Amino acid sequence: MDTEANDISRLTPKEIRSLIRKGTWNEVTAGLALGYAQANLVILPERYAFDFLLFCQRNPKPCPLLEVLEKGVSEPKEMAPGADLRRDLPRYRIYEKGAFVREVADISPYWASDLVSFLLGCSYSFEFALMDAGVPVRHIEEGKNVPMYISTIPCKKAGVFEGTLVVTMRPIPPDKVVRAVQITTRFSAVHGAPVHVGDPSKIGIRDLGKPDFGDSVRINPGEVPVYWACGVTPQVALMKNKPDFVITHSPGHMFITDIRNEDLATF
Amino acid sequence: MDTEANDISRLTPKEIRSLIRKGTWNEVTAGLALGYAQANLVILPERYAFDFLLFCQRNPKPCPLLEVLEKGVSEPKEMAPGADLRRDLPRYRIYEKGAFVREVADISPYWASDLVSFLLGCSYSFEFALMDAGVPVRHIEEGKNVPMYISTIPCKKAGVFEGTLVVTMRPIPPDKVVRAVQITTRFSAVHGAPVHVGDPSKIGIRDLGKPDFGDSVRINPGEVPVYWACGVTPQVALMKNKPDFVITHSPGHMFITDIRNEDLATF
Repeated sequence: MDTEANDISRLTPKEIRSLIRKGTWNEVTAGLALGYAQANLVILPERYAFDFLLFCQRNPKPCPLLEVLEKGVSEPKEMAPGADLRRDLPRYRIYEKGAFVREVADISPYWASDLVSFLLGCSYSFEFALMDAGVPVRHIEEGKNVPMYISTIPCKKAGVFEGTLVVTMRPIPPDKVVRAVQITTRFSAVHGAPVHVGDPSKIGIRDLGKPDFGDSVRINPGEVPVYWACGVTPQVALMKNKPDFVITHSPGHMFITDIRNEDLATF
Repeated sequence: MDTEANDISRLTPKEIRSLIRKGTWNEVTAGLALGYAQANLVILPERYAFDFLLFCQRNPKPCPLLEVLEKGVSEPKEMAPGADLRRDLPRYRIYEKGAFVREVADISPYWASDLVSFLLGCSYSFEFALMDAGVPVRHIEEGKNVPMYISTIPCKKAGVFEGTLVVTMRPIPPDKVVRAVQITTRFSAVHGAPVHVGDPSKIGIRDLGKPDFGDSVRINPGEVPVYWACGVTPQVALMKNKPDFVITHSPGHMFITDIRNEDLATF
């Protein structure tokens, strides 16, 4: 076992963010600070902020807002007091006019007083709850990224932003489907209950073996494909509009909050 | 029994809105379109809209957003397609620099292309669920307005908006408290679970017999006062900031939506 990885997995969110800020840790955050919520990051100029906030308000399943910061503010006081969103994620992606331009470890040089930061919940939070309840999570068992598909389910348009839902799929044994629905219903702050159960063609997915993002996973005989709204949805809706400037986390390189997954449960 | 009131209570939301638009009905909306959600209305110039939306996002219990409309739009396409928020409520209040200036039945003369409309959930929705489950709702039994109190529980500040929570109080028999919590937990879109149970002094209320708004109600021996976040909270936070111009519904004269209360339940 890798000693360094073993050590870092025992650190608190604050200690890990400190290692990230110093540049000591620049890898993916999966498996770190177990029990604590990790978040997707989107940073936009103020002129897009109202429309994007409205898009998230109208589409809470793909866009579960954990915290929205006032313009120019980079400390997420609710999710991690003392943290700095400009330096406390391992990697960021910079987009200009909807196109990826570069990946960086520190966005301080790009920061401006009109930037508004959005932290969105991530399915890591409910996957731990599923596993705790004995519901298998196939892509974790197989050491892969979750399979993601662009569905035909329309999002509600908001201002300049629109698109269809991107969904994740987890194959669930038939006797565990009800439990999987119940458990994820508790986590409305992190995508919540499934959006579809069963036949992929009903939501415009042609081949479960060919995901649009992530990796394909094994589906055992009798298992039911269950679909949840995915945090890639707002990124696709955003980029479609080709905004002048956007910063996001780099895939898998999330922001680690001080909030326990269980504290995000609705009840 | 008043025949006209009896007749109107059987009409659909759309039919009632049509009578309101024609000026045939200009009274309070309590008891109309039973089973359908009624909504609070706040209309603000665009320059306040992001901060107010952020205030609602950070304080979902007092500010449960049902729909936010793009600027200049007056048709709530989600809650009531075809309706017009400028004419379909029985009475409106106009505020200038935080002060009430007049009450009107039609806000068309005040409409402007930069106005943003917010529809917020109202406790009528969960009160029906409580009564259906045999949990008494005292102010309805007594034919009064719900007692409301300005608590010392702070709201989360957002931009220019801040304040403390206004709460409603319902006295609940001790053997019904758990059920009352469970039922209202289902209705997170309309204030959700209670914010406090029991001793009023813990949240800064000196005398339950003297509410800050609404009427006082009888508390029977052994009954537990249970407190829920109240939709007056955002109005108080708003007015404190003395915005140039705000329109709200007149108290009790709500917007009647096409959405069933049960469709607002989380699960």
